[in-house]
Amino acid sequence: MSATLIDGKAIAADLRAKVAAEAARLARDHGLVPGLAVVLVGEDPASAVYVRNKGKATVEAGLRSFEHKLPATASQAELLALVSRLNADPAVHGILVQLPLPAQIDAQAVIEAIDPKKDVDGFHPVNAGRLSAGLPALVPCTPVGCVILARTVRPQLAGLEAVVVGRSNIVGKPVAQLLLAENCTVTIAHSKTRDLPEVCRRADILVAAVGRPEMIRGDWIKPGATVIDVGINRVEAGEGKTRLVGDVAFAEAGAVAGAITPVPGGVGPMTIACLLANTLKAASMQAGLTAPVV
Amino acid sequence: MSATLIDGKAIAADLRAKVAAEAARLARDHGLVPGLAVVLVGEDPASAVYVRNKGKATVEAGLRSFEHKLPATASQAELLALVSRLNADPAVHGILVQLPLPAQIDAQAVIEAIDPKKDVDGFHPVNAGRLSAGLPALVPCTPVGCVILARTVRPQLAGLEAVVVGRSNIVGKPVAQLLLAENCTVTIAHSKTRDLPEVCRRADILVAAVGRPEMIRGDWIKPGATVIDVGINRVEAGEGKTRLVGDVAFAEAGAVAGAITPVPGGVGPMTIACLLANTLKAASMQAGLTAPVV
Repeated sequence: MSATLIDGKAIAADLRAKVAAEAARLARDHGLVPGLAVVLVGEDPASAVYVRNKGKATVEAGLRSFEHKLPATASQAELLALVSRLNADPAVHGILVQLPLPAQIDAQAVIEAIDPKKDVDGFHPVNAGRLSAGLPALVPCTPVGCVILARTVRPQLAGLEAVVVGRSNIVGKPVAQLLLAENCTVTIAHSKTRDLPEVCRRADILVAAVGRPEMIRGDWIKPGATVIDVGINRVEAGEGKTRLVGDVAFAEAGAVAGAITPVPGGVGPMTIACLLANTLKAASMQAGLTAPVV
Repeated sequence: MSATLIDGKAIAADLRAKVAAEAARLARDHGLVPGLAVVLVGEDPASAVYVRNKGKATVEAGLRSFEHKLPATASQAELLALVSRLNADPAVHGILVQLPLPAQIDAQAVIEAIDPKKDVDGFHPVNAGRLSAGLPALVPCTPVGCVILARTVRPQLAGLEAVVVGRSNIVGKPVAQLLLAENCTVTIAHSKTRDLPEVCRRADILVAAVGRPEMIRGDWIKPGATVIDVGINRVEAGEGKTRLVGDVAFAEAGAVAGAITPVPGGVGPMTIACLLANTLKAASMQAGLTAPVV
């Protein structure tokens, strides 16, 4: 492989350390300890792992962690009542409701019930709109992580051609907005794109967020491009085992790209680190303090 | 010129007639007459013309028009108090504050003070976010007009390459969102784009919204492309006269494009027609009725 490996684990650790230092400063200078409430509905094992990891990282960074668990049978009204209590709780600066939610609950209604100021996932339409308008906003964590990673190898993104493959509200659309704010020329490609390989080959910065294992091949990559792989797909590895792969065929792409994120250990670790940074930012803004740049 | 001329004047007249028919039906079946309040601060002559034309078109479509004029010296508090009264007025279903506003008034604060349900300009962050998330929203009028015009010559936009030149909150960004929702592969280009002619040459649908007279030349156009020109620029025409031109060099582009909007008479007339359609939609939604498709 000729590409530089973008070490998301190390970059995320660095970001978490900066959040911890800022949190210590906030506590010392303002007596403010940012608090993050994470709500888990049901027993989905993957979600339980995510929630546990978030709680652990939150405490390690010197923030307060509040975990709320509701049974899989919880009604929408119960969940909305909990969100309402958390909205009103001054110790809680960030609220994250772990998705997916059970079928009886309308996820969009829950997202819209969270106070936008505490919406550390950045999924509330108010935050999506503020991001789009260039106003201060809480921005979804994974997209922010993607841009931080890209900037470690391309400190100046202005004028570059960025191609985002995937247009979800959680990753594709917000990462396109962030790259536009960095003055990239941004193309959003998706399942209806006619010649996806050709569109990808334009990219100086290629962000893959489609959730299809190794869909993006080596010959779709422009030589020297920076490849940010958001996909985390579990595939058969033979002998009854499985392994994780991204949306990009890593070995092929790594032979052409200038820099590439591995899966795992690329974008993944950035998401929790950016969640902590968002909690710090939310707490600072709620206290009327300038949000620290971490 | 070989390109089909996209007759915005005729298409807008058709849309206004549909709004009038729907308004008549709403009045007959539900006793509901949609009302649009337009607020003008100061004496800017161009703004005064726009406001007068909006009022006239509103009445012609069978809607109620409310015009509010404040002096150029009005304070932000006065304007916000007026917006607050209009938010609470059940006869007012749409509120439009004519921009630009005098320097002593923070336009963003005014935009955010309008009830998103009455925000017929679609500039409120809630509406921008809902558009981005694919939720029902009031969408800015000019971008909607652009897409309607494109669809008159390309009924099926899915899979086409769309390039939007310009990234304003009022036109560029929302038109990109709309084209993405139509399943175009969408590129947003702007002043920092490195090879703008080359990026434009990719476009099956080219939307120009930069406000620079005739910047986009004939050899930037892909043969057969649909060109939507949002620019309205007044330039010297010799002998002390002026004339209006778009952002696209019309004669050159028309020799290459498959279809093109003229300036004036292209996108311009669509804006007011879409404003009336938004007012109808806002009134229907506020009354709990299905918004008519016009």
